[in-house]
Amino acid sequence: MTDFAGTGKVTGERAGAMKFASDNWAGASEKVIAALAEAARRGGPAYGGDALSKAVEDRFAEVFEHEVAVFPVATGTAANALALSAYARPGGIIFCHADAHVAVDEAGAAEFLAGLKVSGIAGADGKLSLAALREALAMVPEGATHRGQPAAVSLTNITEIGTAYSADEITAVAEVARGRGAPVHLDGARFAGAVAALGVTPAELTWRAGVDVMSFGGTKNGCVAADAVIFFQPSDAREFAFIRQRAGHTFSKHWFAAAQFDAYLKDGHWLELARRANAMGAKLAEAIARSRIARLALPAAANEVFAILPKTVDERLRAAGAIYYAWPDTASISSAPAPDEVLVRLVTSFATSEADVKAFAGALVTNS
Amino acid sequence: MTDFAGTGKVTGERAGAMKFASDNWAGASEKVIAALAEAARRGGPAYGGDALSKAVEDRFAEVFEHEVAVFPVATGTAANALALSAYARPGGIIFCHADAHVAVDEAGAAEFLAGLKVSGIAGADGKLSLAALREALAMVPEGATHRGQPAAVSLTNITEIGTAYSADEITAVAEVARGRGAPVHLDGARFAGAVAALGVTPAELTWRAGVDVMSFGGTKNGCVAADAVIFFQPSDAREFAFIRQRAGHTFSKHWFAAAQFDAYLKDGHWLELARRANAMGAKLAEAIARSRIARLALPAAANEVFAILPKTVDERLRAAGAIYYAWPDTASISSAPAPDEVLVRLVTSFATSEADVKAFAGALVTNS
Amino acid sequence: MTDFAGTGKVTGERAGAMKFASDNWAGASEKVIAALAEAARRGGPAYGGDALSKAVEDRFAEVFEHEVAVFPVATGTAANALALSAYARPGGIIFCHADAHVAVDEAGAAEFLAGLKVSGIAGADGKLSLAALREALAMVPEGATHRGQPAAVSLTNITEIGTAYSADEITAVAEVARGRGAPVHLDGARFAGAVAALGVTPAELTWRAGVDVMSFGGTKNGCVAADAVIFFQPSDAREFAFIRQRAGHTFSKHWFAAAQFDAYLKDGHWLELARRANAMGAKLAEAIARSRIARLALPAAANEVFAILPKTVDERLRAAGAIYYAWPDTASISSAPAPDEVLVRLVTSFATSEADVKAFAGALVTNS
Amino acid sequence: MTDFAGTGKVTGERAGAMKFASDNWAGASEKVIAALAEAARRGGPAYGGDALSKAVEDRFAEVFEHEVAVFPVATGTAANALALSAYARPGGIIFCHADAHVAVDEAGAAEFLAGLKVSGIAGADGKLSLAALREALAMVPEGATHRGQPAAVSLTNITEIGTAYSADEITAVAEVARGRGAPVHLDGARFAGAVAALGVTPAELTWRAGVDVMSFGGTKNGCVAADAVIFFQPSDAREFAFIRQRAGHTFSKHWFAAAQFDAYLKDGHWLELARRANAMGAKLAEAIARSRIARLALPAAANEVFAILPKTVDERLRAAGAIYYAWPDTASISSAPAPDEVLVRLVTSFATSEADVKAFAGALVTNS
Repeated sequence: MTDFAGTGKVTGERAGAMKFASDNWAGASEKVIAALAEAARRGGPAYGGDALSKAVEDRFAEVFEHEVAVFPVATGTAANALALSAYARPGGIIFCHADAHVAVDEAGAAEFLAGLKVSGIAGADGKLSLAALREALAMVPEGATHRGQPAAVSLTNITEIGTAYSADEITAVAEVARGRGAPVHLDGARFAGAVAALGVTPAELTWRAGVDVMSFGGTKNGCVAADAVIFFQPSDAREFAFIRQRAGHTFSKHWFAAAQFDAYLKDGHWLELARRANAMGAKLAEAIARSRIARLALPAAANEVFAILPKTVDERLRAAGAIYYAWPDTASISSAPAPDEVLVRLVTSFATSEADVKAFAGALVTNS
Repeated sequence: MTDFAGTGKVTGERAGAMKFASDNWAGASEKVIAALAEAARRGGPAYGGDALSKAVEDRFAEVFEHEVAVFPVATGTAANALALSAYARPGGIIFCHADAHVAVDEAGAAEFLAGLKVSGIAGADGKLSLAALREALAMVPEGATHRGQPAAVSLTNITEIGTAYSADEITAVAEVARGRGAPVHLDGARFAGAVAALGVTPAELTWRAGVDVMSFGGTKNGCVAADAVIFFQPSDAREFAFIRQRAGHTFSKHWFAAAQFDAYLKDGHWLELARRANAMGAKLAEAIARSRIARLALPAAANEVFAILPKTVDERLRAAGAIYYAWPDTASISSAPAPDEVLVRLVTSFATSEADVKAFAGALVTNS
Repeated sequence: MTDFAGTGKVTGERAGAMKFASDNWAGASEKVIAALAEAARRGGPAYGGDALSKAVEDRFAEVFEHEVAVFPVATGTAANALALSAYARPGGIIFCHADAHVAVDEAGAAEFLAGLKVSGIAGADGKLSLAALREALAMVPEGATHRGQPAAVSLTNITEIGTAYSADEITAVAEVARGRGAPVHLDGARFAGAVAALGVTPAELTWRAGVDVMSFGGTKNGCVAADAVIFFQPSDAREFAFIRQRAGHTFSKHWFAAAQFDAYLKDGHWLELARRANAMGAKLAEAIARSRIARLALPAAANEVFAILPKTVDERLRAAGAIYYAWPDTASISSAPAPDEVLVRLVTSFATSEADVKAFAGALVTNS
Repeated sequence: MTDFAGTGKVTGERAGAMKFASDNWAGASEKVIAALAEAARRGGPAYGGDALSKAVEDRFAEVFEHEVAVFPVATGTAANALALSAYARPGGIIFCHADAHVAVDEAGAAEFLAGLKVSGIAGADGKLSLAALREALAMVPEGATHRGQPAAVSLTNITEIGTAYSADEITAVAEVARGRGAPVHLDGARFAGAVAALGVTPAELTWRAGVDVMSFGGTKNGCVAADAVIFFQPSDAREFAFIRQRAGHTFSKHWFAAAQFDAYLKDGHWLELARRANAMGAKLAEAIARSRIARLALPAAANEVFAILPKTVDERLRAAGAIYYAWPDTASISSAPAPDEVLVRLVTSFATSEADVKAFAGALVTNS
């Protein structure tokens, strides 16, 4: 069977491998590990009753320049499905891009945990098309008992194909959602990369643009397991402690999650890590563009590079030890691969070195 | 908001109305009502322990020329979602036509009752495209934990837009499903119409073509409330009594459901009713085709006529008392309406009279 | 395995049988059937858009002397679980009597359809003990994330063991519930029997006593399939149309449900039927009390008679053709059966004749 | 509102506090943290595709002397509910002790995630009564559609009140379960404590005694967040990767969970930690027994000490800085507190020092 992203089938622990499979193949930042070690010596009240868990909420409020309610959970999938649960309604429908993680990579978590229908919407460059979103919403008019009702609109930034929504683009989506009374969820598994890439503030990409709740991901950017649901309207979180608990996502040693976020957010460490990953992404993209052997499928905004390779080159690179996924979802990519080509995703991380990129660039052009 | 099929908003009890809104606007056949009255005098053991419930199972076996397990439930939506529940798996996905009732008209019943993701597949004329189905299945390769796994392929006959799958077409879909180990579900809300239209046996359109389970609908064709889940592999029904009970669908006076099916199936009454509805559909289609004012959106196989009307004509007909729905799902209709036109669905039933059709045909051509 | 109420295993269509298995073994009232036949001739807009469905809501409002929102569903189990769904909260718990239908006879419908935990509370005579209820509520203090939170208190009238809550008793339960912000649900599968037995108004046994929502059952008292969820605060029903639809409980030919309720409520027909059933219950209880062979387990308030029989007598009665269930739930019955005795439930209905009772009374005392 | 275990309300980070609130207030073992740091430097394939995740499965197999399938998840609550999900059936019921975590402390996780009814069974000393279990199973005879069907029997070792099931006691429960075809689940949140306390092998307390699946907890005994579902019949785990993913419990940096378990199990570190906690528990119990001011509610088998204190002493201890929970669930404790007494739970951990115990012992007898 096909071996593509989402299947979790690519493996590789070969020495010297050029690992671009995903940013969740990287380890963790030293600062994050040091914070865990410190928390391990200290301990504290369980289930979030400790001082650090409270302090981290304040730190998030500072980062976002807004009151927030913060709930660490175990994974980005949990963050997405549980955030959406807070807005679930009987017959509720989530509208998101057809390629969104919540639509295709969570084994039905939103359906299962939140009882929602997931409606995938088309859109170029991995972004929701406003026209398609409006059309989809029009198909579930208010009171249409059979059709269901909008529960939320969810968007992903950095998108699944490595592009970035600008604050204005998010605002435009939020306005359409608001027109139907639907809250806006942001899947921010790679949110740090978006902030770093766009040079805007976290506030501008979230509540100022109309986002009500987000999945804030630290795991892909240097943490051990640090994903959190962040509500910008704390009253929306009224029942969330119960939502989290009945899904088995309340960490007992909650301060370990808090410690990670504390170190991650302190002194802009999170953006420093993201800038490093993005810089490596840019270098990788440049090497590909320059190679005349492969081409970029679309411009890389952050740390994900989508490239189209001749199949022979793909085989050569893999034989040389490069690790990355073929990418199956081509619908929103304008420049589609030819039959003898393959669309691939290459992901850099905070841990990617210039040497890694150079090795790949070299392998790309070498006719071994 | 739009007033289209699925919204349940069209209303109308005007005298002399030309009612083509749906076949579930019709009353019930006299034979069915007589059977209910007879059952009311008799009573019997509750929850299906009575002799008639058992006899009806035998009658179904005879109709289908195959051993069956039969479970009446309250509605077609329940039949669909509960039938699919019997094949639900964690991370399970149902593949069906993008316009299927199970995808768009059940307020998320399959997601809610069976915990399934519903994946809408394209296809002309309301039928699953084999190529699109194969492609969709390829996107959830075996063991792809994130993507989920096929739970079933569901098809609808008569389709949502009034076309009919032939036995060969069903066989072809079933082969693709079988290639991935997925069972085949048939939404037969209008199954009688399909059998009557195609002139084949019930067996040929079901188990002989690879169908494992079906929703058998009597309600739209002359019953009061008679929908049933029919398993062609009775072992698949192992847990179904519990599935039905925890969904609140075990009728206590079960023999009232049995009585309806008994009268419905006896001496081919169900096909007689369907032939009447289909004949009226054919007359209506003919009137429209002949009118030179409206045109058929696609050939009508049974009792649903999809027509494209100039908006002015649409208004005129409604003013004259005709009742029918605008139809919002145009994706699988090749001949789409122009901006000044509207796609409408006109449904006949066993209770439609020639006078009704004539009244409509007259109103269509009259420049009042 | 044991053959007791809830297993649905007792069967019997022997001629001349003394059938006291359940009131859902009876057929249907002639008036109800006549109304169905009339509706069958008429038809009408589907899904509750018809005039009769609206008229029935008015009729209910008149019966209850209060504004109501009325939603017919297929069964009493559905009515219970869906009514409770309207008040479901993450981590929500339903408190009800340990023997309640919702706790032990619905195969987990409340857990499945509403995601609720069901907490069975002790109490003599089938009624919630206020002290036990208070204690159970104290175990889930506000904000106790692990323990969950009260979603509703549910009580059943006529209770599962044939006793009746007075209006004052309901008021007392409702006050305890209200003290924790929990709404009150009434399982009224045999509500007509309670009203008839107590000689009070429907209002006094419901909203005046603090009931927020009820399952109103007509099926056990002369209808074909007529159970409805009735909200006394119509705003609580805001999402109920979706709750009902995604559970597959929206009848398409909704007017058939309406027609039953219309005939059932008209001119007090429902209370007339209940009085007949209760009168037969009283005669049966009297015969048992007088027999000196069997004894009443507790006084019969309506149409359910719980008796304790010597096992030899039980065998003799069954051999003579009497049909009834052994009753397994003895916790709330003070007068428990001895080892050589058995607790049985005998249920009369609107269709029970004096001859049936006499036959049983005769068989009871006859040493054949 | 009451401040008891399960509410998560006790807080305290006072210097010098005698912290006996729970073993999840302790930090983490140095060896576990060192393993995390090492994994952080290394990284690896995501989602369990790495070599360490596979090696850990082998290590578990060695510890249990049996083939196993191992799935780390985020919490003990998740481990319980998801383990049970693998055995869920429509209408399924879990039988467990009335005080079990799965029954009262998971906010309905088993109901929500596995769609199961949870039936709490009585039993002295926190252990299932075989008679009560048999009786409860008899109430859901095979095929009793209304009542539901057994899905699993779950027991907890160390129990919720600090006692330990012997291997023979588990075998006896498993035999009853097996008699009804129900698999056996073990909640092993404090399993290390049980093995250490009883001086038996892990195998003897699990599969040899009839356990099919367990929740293996490392978090309470020195890990950061290390709970895992362990199947002793790997074929039972067939769908578990999907069960875990759709619940959001598949760690992407899976090797961080693996690293914790690797260090935890290596060279018997887990039992060393548990023996330390148990030794402190024994000393604490001894101090209480000797105090003549408080008394033990029941003998402490491992690291949980249940004591009955005069309320005045309780107040004095808390004022002196001692932290522990009042315990609300008294049903299975034979020696109940008098009105002027309180039942409390004191938990030691690997991090408890002799000084902590001495400070408490001193505060207990000091009339300050």
